[in-house]
Amino acid sequence: MTRFQAIGRPTPLLDGRERVTGQLRYAPDLSLPGMVHGRFVTSPYPHARIVAVDKTTALSFPGVVAVLTADDLPDIPPDNRPHLLLARGRVIFPGQPVALVLAETAAAAADAIELVLVDYEPLPAAATITELLAPGAPLVWPGGKPGDTGEAAAHGADVATGGEERGEPSNIGNQNSYQRGNIEDGLTEADIIVERHFTIPFVHHSYLETQATIVMPDPLSGGATVWTSTQAPFPVREGVANVLGVRETDVRVIATPVGGGFGGKYELYQPLAALVARVVGRPVKLVLTRQEDMAAANPAPASQFHLKLGGTHDGKITALWADIKFDEGCYPGFHGIAAFLLGSAYQIPNLLINFTSVLSFKPSVGAYRAPGAVQAFYALESTLDDLARQLNLDPLTLRQKYASLTGDPMANGRPWSKIGLHEVLETVQQHPAWVNREQARAQGRGIGVAVGGWPGGVEPSSATCLLEKDGLIELRIGWVDLTGTAVGFQLLAAEAFGVSPERVRVVAGDTATSSFAGSTGGSKATYMIGPSVIQAAQAARAQTLEIAGQMFEADPADLEIVNGAVQVRGVPDKQITLKEIAQKTMQFGSRYAPVVGQGRYANTTNSPGFCAQLAEVSVDEETGQVLVHRLVLVQDVGQVINPLTLRGQIVGGAMQGVGFALYEGLVYGENGQLLTGSWMDYTVPNFAQAVGQIEVVTVEVASEHGPYGAKGAGEPPIIATAAAIANAIRDATGKRVTDLPMTPPRVLAVLQADSVSSQ
Amino acid sequence: MTRFQAIGRPTPLLDGRERVTGQLRYAPDLSLPGMVHGRFVTSPYPHARIVAVDKTTALSFPGVVAVLTADDLPDIPPDNRPHLLLARGRVIFPGQPVALVLAETAAAAADAIELVLVDYEPLPAAATITELLAPGAPLVWPGGKPGDTGEAAAHGADVATGGEERGEPSNIGNQNSYQRGNIEDGLTEADIIVERHFTIPFVHHSYLETQATIVMPDPLSGGATVWTSTQAPFPVREGVANVLGVRETDVRVIATPVGGGFGGKYELYQPLAALVARVVGRPVKLVLTRQEDMAAANPAPASQFHLKLGGTHDGKITALWADIKFDEGCYPGFHGIAAFLLGSAYQIPNLLINFTSVLSFKPSVGAYRAPGAVQAFYALESTLDDLARQLNLDPLTLRQKYASLTGDPMANGRPWSKIGLHEVLETVQQHPAWVNREQARAQGRGIGVAVGGWPGGVEPSSATCLLEKDGLIELRIGWVDLTGTAVGFQLLAAEAFGVSPERVRVVAGDTATSSFAGSTGGSKATYMIGPSVIQAAQAARAQTLEIAGQMFEADPADLEIVNGAVQVRGVPDKQITLKEIAQKTMQFGSRYAPVVGQGRYANTTNSPGFCAQLAEVSVDEETGQVLVHRLVLVQDVGQVINPLTLRGQIVGGAMQGVGFALYEGLVYGENGQLLTGSWMDYTVPNFAQAVGQIEVVTVEVASEHGPYGAKGAGEPPIIATAAAIANAIRDATGKRVTDLPMTPPRVLAVLQADSVSSQ
Repeated sequence: MTRFQAIGRPTPLLDGRERVTGQLRYAPDLSLPGMVHGRFVTSPYPHARIVAVDKTTALSFPGVVAVLTADDLPDIPPDNRPHLLLARGRVIFPGQPVALVLAETAAAAADAIELVLVDYEPLPAAATITELLAPGAPLVWPGGKPGDTGEAAAHGADVATGGEERGEPSNIGNQNSYQRGNIEDGLTEADIIVERHFTIPFVHHSYLETQATIVMPDPLSGGATVWTSTQAPFPVREGVANVLGVRETDVRVIATPVGGGFGGKYELYQPLAALVARVVGRPVKLVLTRQEDMAAANPAPASQFHLKLGGTHDGKITALWADIKFDEGCYPGFHGIAAFLLGSAYQIPNLLINFTSVLSFKPSVGAYRAPGAVQAFYALESTLDDLARQLNLDPLTLRQKYASLTGDPMANGRPWSKIGLHEVLETVQQHPAWVNREQARAQGRGIGVAVGGWPGGVEPSSATCLLEKDGLIELRIGWVDLTGTAVGFQLLAAEAFGVSPERVRVVAGDTATSSFAGSTGGSKATYMIGPSVIQAAQAARAQTLEIAGQMFEADPADLEIVNGAVQVRGVPDKQITLKEIAQKTMQFGSRYAPVVGQGRYANTTNSPGFCAQLAEVSVDEETGQVLVHRLVLVQDVGQVINPLTLRGQIVGGAMQGVGFALYEGLVYGENGQLLTGSWMDYTVPNFAQAVGQIEVVTVEVASEHGPYGAKGAGEPPIIATAAAIANAIRDATGKRVTDLPMTPPRVLAVLQADSVSSQ
Repeated sequence: MTRFQAIGRPTPLLDGRERVTGQLRYAPDLSLPGMVHGRFVTSPYPHARIVAVDKTTALSFPGVVAVLTADDLPDIPPDNRPHLLLARGRVIFPGQPVALVLAETAAAAADAIELVLVDYEPLPAAATITELLAPGAPLVWPGGKPGDTGEAAAHGADVATGGEERGEPSNIGNQNSYQRGNIEDGLTEADIIVERHFTIPFVHHSYLETQATIVMPDPLSGGATVWTSTQAPFPVREGVANVLGVRETDVRVIATPVGGGFGGKYELYQPLAALVARVVGRPVKLVLTRQEDMAAANPAPASQFHLKLGGTHDGKITALWADIKFDEGCYPGFHGIAAFLLGSAYQIPNLLINFTSVLSFKPSVGAYRAPGAVQAFYALESTLDDLARQLNLDPLTLRQKYASLTGDPMANGRPWSKIGLHEVLETVQQHPAWVNREQARAQGRGIGVAVGGWPGGVEPSSATCLLEKDGLIELRIGWVDLTGTAVGFQLLAAEAFGVSPERVRVVAGDTATSSFAGSTGGSKATYMIGPSVIQAAQAARAQTLEIAGQMFEADPADLEIVNGAVQVRGVPDKQITLKEIAQKTMQFGSRYAPVVGQGRYANTTNSPGFCAQLAEVSVDEETGQVLVHRLVLVQDVGQVINPLTLRGQIVGGAMQGVGFALYEGLVYGENGQLLTGSWMDYTVPNFAQAVGQIEVVTVEVASEHGPYGAKGAGEPPIIATAAAIANAIRDATGKRVTDLPMTPPRVLAVLQADSVSSQ
């Protein structure tokens, strides 16, 4: 039983049928008359001077329309990665676009890139974090690092900016730190200090659809229409308008259905495509190949964590010390949130956490689902688990003892808003998989538990709700549906307007048809846009009833909406359909104004979402192969809007967590080149590698701010998985694996070493 | 001194500089990559059966992409003219499109239409109204007349639908009649009955820019983007969506700057262009040549008026009897308003007015500025003038005696809403040109006065007001600026938001960016959309001050906006700019919702606009040439929003009235073909034919409903001019000219005849 009519109904994705039957048209499927196809000539070097580019042969290739280099484009300061455009004089990562071939067909462009001759003078390029930070290291930005990528703001969540100093040029991108109490005292007080080093590689989002953009120059305004696979139409609009030198409103961004984003599809090559379309005066299509995307899009960063966690025999945690370094590629990133989360999840009296972002000769990194959090919780939850075992404490009990409560201070001293960390831990504790864990252990399996948390982003939103002439309620929102939020908004609007969800049509991601809404990322789409949707639908309902009231000469309060028609409550023989009402608001001589409900919302109180995950694994002691037999995914979502899409979100997140845990990692060779540039070399979990049994358990600690109590659900499920699996491996084998992915050779090496003792 | 900050400031057109320097890009100036150019193969016959179309030769012409006929298009019922598409089996007017050639260049299309061989079997075609109504006349629609054009609703204003009977097929389009009192008694009571027959020809709008449309099929939705010169983007959207079989919201109509509309640019070839673009899968550009436009667009109808006006020697008007027939071309029209106006302007106790619309083998007619009113007032004001003179009464005094007042019954018995007819007559009476009329007469000139009135249309509207990141206030309205209403809305929004007009940017005529607003026509843009604009701007201002209040921790009521910044009243050192506010509403982590003000308005009380015009002419008794030395244009506009554009409107309207009076008329030969198919043959007044001196005098009888009291101003100025000039000719010569245009041969013939005696 539910107090809602529409909310809570398991409702399939609005475009689910089209998605699975191959009918949905993604950006790469679109074609415009007169369109040219672009392919990049990319750098094979991590660092080199461009001596010369010879276009002659390529230009004479049949079908080639143009071969462009930086010299053909305006000299825009490369303040952020999308403004890097084509390399100007120097390349700073392998795979960096140096020239762009435009041709009548994609095949001609692919053939012709081989004919563009680039003369490089290789320059020294440090590879590891240590080398990059060494005195005298070759610098990614010898003239000083460029401005922030902009994604810092979009993904940094609640990060203190830290005490970065501006001094000599270096490869330090940015730094921050948190402290509490007295770290020396805390470590001194400890009976046991667990000290660990963790490494996590670059990981690629591995969306099925690569980065894709089509730009048509606008014949009227000098701006452009941009069809692109993006999570962030308004930031793309801003970026394109900036490079074109037009007003933002002269650029129309139509966010096409996204074939996987996961944080990797904010803004990348859209400004370049727009500039290039202007140069050639034709629509330009730019779709990355898988290899180009693996090499040059914005993956998750590599990182290394050095942790010391102190505890006493009477079950106290006394200190957490951490040194965190992230390799964030060739632009300063925004993963300092890792330090913040490390110091916030538990109430540890003495803290010192230092974070350093390192610039490198690698592609700039982007947001990958819970950026920084996956890494932080893998390190934290592994270390905490080891401490509990070394103190002969139940790891779950130790977590419950120190887990932050609503109002407890975070790393920055500010209080946690309403959170459900204890609730998810308690739910795991009562779950049969935990209660009966000895049965699994008896089969040689290990049980691991870990938590993960995401502060939840905030960003203003607006939404418009129209009653259209076909009687449908049209919801226009300038956001992008990545994960089924569209059907969630449909349910919210249906609930608020008082109609069945089928009568609501959701129009997404078009900056021309919608006013501003924040980007889709940071687990904030439903949380921050939902209230605008409800407001807009309520306003539209009120306007509709007001009109019907005038028609019926009745008090709007006495009216109800039944089956798409308004009637006096309980008097079904006196009806007017929504379609009739709409038509009477859009015709000559009509006495009724169009129904246009507007919603606007902003709120800076985030609603953090916590999960606790239990993994049950077995480890083949001879090969090191880990099998995940069972995952129990417990998550606080505030209020379930649509159980069907929510389950998809949570399972999908955990599967990506499995990828982080066991399979995925971009590997670079000694010369700085990418060795895993295709899905032949880079392992995304497939069906054979899937988990035996997955159970989703939702907990509803209602948000005070989200729509009907909902909070963001996208990020949390990926965060705990790697740690839960690592802890299960530890439980099964007594050994701690500290490097991701936990591949069979790596696990085998740990099993054969003595480094970590069992409890 | 004014109570307003922005309103009443003489403000140039927003795009005035671009217009006069040739920089503004109209639809014909636009070009899309991959675009094909369309040219029509048109019928030379007014009525014929299409036996066969041979495309073969044309298809082999270099550059020709396709030759399409009705067989290539869906068989859509030709309910209205835009649905007539290409002729199917039969043509019903000369110039009707039979086939469409699509080619890579406009030149190739023009060449290839000569190569399409159409075999016609000519059918009998009646030419005159008398022939068309005769028993056994060939029928335009033998199977029964099609549905209304839709423009009936859009232009019919306050017309009773009349007692049309459905019987045998005939060429009667529709009929209506008005009666009051007892017409027989009224005519019997009269001492003098002035009986007149008037004829008015088809007149073409003669916009500089011909009908023009570019359609791009939408790669994502199956709909289309339509750039077109139209006054009515939402009706075009509906028409295009209907023929494409998609939702209206899948069609985006971008109304390009209109190079002259005057009522002639509602919907015509846009649905055809959209269908054709779908057939060939490429953008299609369809721009009519001048000759095609003169022949096949929708001109003003031809009409004939038979009037009897009875009066007594003691100065009473006793009866008005009228039989009105309009030739409305091949589709039923909407000019019955002529009968309504004829019976409404004066309070005549006995009325009988019959109106018949006749279908003919001519292009369907459209709205031409004050459709029906120009014709009605020409006939009425001429006849009334003659009656006054025959009764030895001052024509102005007689008008003042019978002119309708607010609340007086109209022809349909309903009361006039607030009108200023008496005020404009009184203003003329006190004007030096009238007071000193004997001085002009002493120079052999004649002075004529006439009134004109337009009921004013009503149609719902909405508007959105956004605060954009560049600090500008963006006003999105789904209407088209024909006459400078954009700058009027800029002033209204500036006034309501409290900023200078330069800070307001108006975005017009895009169905994707705007919610519904009515079409531009019927003198209702400012009147019906203005209130939505004010509402939207006030809402946006309130939201902006609310945000600034939170920033300042001040009561929004204590804030003011000065020079684009918000400050605490009188404390200029504490400021935040609108730009800063906007940016803080559209960024990650912000605490302020985007500023989105919404306005919605509907009102069925129209605000009729009356004018009175004085013409001073001389007539060359040897050639019949009429020189207009002076026009005094007095008009009630309710409230002047922008005196500069208002003057342009009034002068422009009167000049079109001069065209009606002296120069313009489409002439058809005996075989039904158009003889005046170019501006070599069809005379639009040029500078040499311009009026010596034009004075505009505005009267402000504030509307209770329009924005700040304004009412529609577009239609009235054209209405009185022909009658004022005819009355001046009568004053100068003692002769009444009853046929338009009053060309020298026609005037000479009247001067040489005895038919009308001087007073």
